[in-house]
Amino acid sequence: MTTRIAIDCMGGDHGPSVTVPAALRFLDEQAGVSLILVGQEDAIRPLLASHASNPRLSIVHASEIVGMDESPALALRNKKDSSMRVAINQVKNGDADACVSAGNTGALMAISRFVLKMLPGIERPAICAPLPTANGHTHMLDLGANVDCGPEHLLQFGIMGSSLISAMERKERPTVGILNIGEEEIKGNEVVKAAAELLRASDLNFIGNVEGDGIYKGDADVIVCDGFVGNVALKTSEGLAQMLASSLRSEFKRNWLTKLAALIAISVLNNFKNRFDHRRYNGAILLGLKGISVKSHGSADELAFCNALSRAYEAAQNRVVDRIAEHLARMATPLQVAATETV
Amino acid sequence: MTTRIAIDCMGGDHGPSVTVPAALRFLDEQAGVSLILVGQEDAIRPLLASHASNPRLSIVHASEIVGMDESPALALRNKKDSSMRVAINQVKNGDADACVSAGNTGALMAISRFVLKMLPGIERPAICAPLPTANGHTHMLDLGANVDCGPEHLLQFGIMGSSLISAMERKERPTVGILNIGEEEIKGNEVVKAAAELLRASDLNFIGNVEGDGIYKGDADVIVCDGFVGNVALKTSEGLAQMLASSLRSEFKRNWLTKLAALIAISVLNNFKNRFDHRRYNGAILLGLKGISVKSHGSADELAFCNALSRAYEAAQNRVVDRIAEHLARMATPLQVAATETV
Repeated sequence: MTTRIAIDCMGGDHGPSVTVPAALRFLDEQAGVSLILVGQEDAIRPLLASHASNPRLSIVHASEIVGMDESPALALRNKKDSSMRVAINQVKNGDADACVSAGNTGALMAISRFVLKMLPGIERPAICAPLPTANGHTHMLDLGANVDCGPEHLLQFGIMGSSLISAMERKERPTVGILNIGEEEIKGNEVVKAAAELLRASDLNFIGNVEGDGIYKGDADVIVCDGFVGNVALKTSEGLAQMLASSLRSEFKRNWLTKLAALIAISVLNNFKNRFDHRRYNGAILLGLKGISVKSHGSADELAFCNALSRAYEAAQNRVVDRIAEHLARMATPLQVAATETV
Repeated sequence: MTTRIAIDCMGGDHGPSVTVPAALRFLDEQAGVSLILVGQEDAIRPLLASHASNPRLSIVHASEIVGMDESPALALRNKKDSSMRVAINQVKNGDADACVSAGNTGALMAISRFVLKMLPGIERPAICAPLPTANGHTHMLDLGANVDCGPEHLLQFGIMGSSLISAMERKERPTVGILNIGEEEIKGNEVVKAAAELLRASDLNFIGNVEGDGIYKGDADVIVCDGFVGNVALKTSEGLAQMLASSLRSEFKRNWLTKLAALIAISVLNNFKNRFDHRRYNGAILLGLKGISVKSHGSADELAFCNALSRAYEAAQNRVVDRIAEHLARMATPLQVAATETV
């Protein structure tokens, strides 16, 4: 069966000039997919070239665009015909199995939540994305949707993350850790301590605390944290990686001798670069919704956006939403007790 | 005038085998310093070799050792003759201008606070350390002493950090930023928003929000955050840097061709390594106390511990505690108002 993905072609820093070529590339790569390109038809159609008549490709016109800095509340209220909203509507109406946008994160979150609604048992959506580790990769959530979380939210993140990984990676019982600090006197704040108790009492494969450095050691398949801490950890990592990469580059450009060394070392350096290329990890899933909504990095290039499409495809193929709902249903009673106890 | 530093020789993963050689090395490098080696005399004296008769070196015997995993509360209550406590006592009694320990962070914090007391106007001590940036370095606090902070604590961190940098680096008005997240919908949690208001209303050179990646871009001279977030950011950075370094190493070791490339690129790789060598950044100051207490990384080697001694020396030389106290006195009225308003 074909998996149908709706693409917000107008979102992101580059709009259709990146999203459309990425879509066409993904269409060529993946025979089992059909794509709905959502946005201003005038901007999209000229970019289709020979694909214009591809039966797996359709355009749905949307007249408006959500700005990257626009208030999510205003975008939700006023832009009913934005490419972002219309793409999400495709999922809601059953015309698509997933949608992808590189647009304004807050707006994507607000509109996805309003249009698709939350799964029963989940109070807040969470942003979940993979990060590279020494031995593969891990998934972390929340990466910025919720700045203040209660213990029960962190438990819900654990359930969603675990279901996601067991669906996407066929792992029976993915390990789940909670991001914490290891200073001797103080093992975490009150919320984290209470959340750890809930996670320990749940049916998840909970392994306890993961410290900041444990993220990259691959200590757990899934790491839960509140959106403030998760976002700081993610952006700190991005900043450090950028600084190190640019410093390494400039060391190799220093003089003709170092440039020669770079030429000789180029295959090593390229292997290294490819292994940690952040474009490979593009595509964060908004979990907790009754549908699949994937957020691409705003600055994504063709390759990165293609990877976000691939994430959406795999999430749909593996019935991620159903898997989370099933897990929640299984846990329904203890979860409600837990939530009541900690309020 | 000689600056006197008391060293907890028994602390850290390696104890005297690292702390004593590091002390001797620092003694040779720095003519203006005298060192008090605190710990078990039997363990220290054999390591002194030709330095045994150096008039700038003395030993103060302490019979107990605080374990790396010992409860800080128990260490504080029961180990009155620990090398850590006796080293801190040297500062309290005026026999030393600063103390340095690579021991148990929680215990060092608790004992320093109990023995040295807090400066008036400061409610909580903070751990402050430098981090490398694209254009130099920045200082971040708190890195793990306080897991739950109110807005007024973050303001106090800003005052302490700013005073530290203006004293240590002769900067008139260091820039101060607050660590925050940049997702569009939600610009930080309530504590961070309230703290930003207090910082904006203060006499500090406050530049507003710094995102995770801004740490390494060098957005601000001083970055304040609560100890949970700060510790996660620090350890996440350590973990990522370690993973990247070990991956780069193994790429270069893959076969004889890549090993040859490594040989040719060795000076470039060494320059790169030295620039970001974490040992260069060893030595976190516990700020807010009526005395200088410096925490070295537990796993510090000789070079790293030497750098921690150097930080203590510079902090003492530059009268960091007086500078913070002066700043607090200047701000006394607005600070009290602010603290009352936000309680």
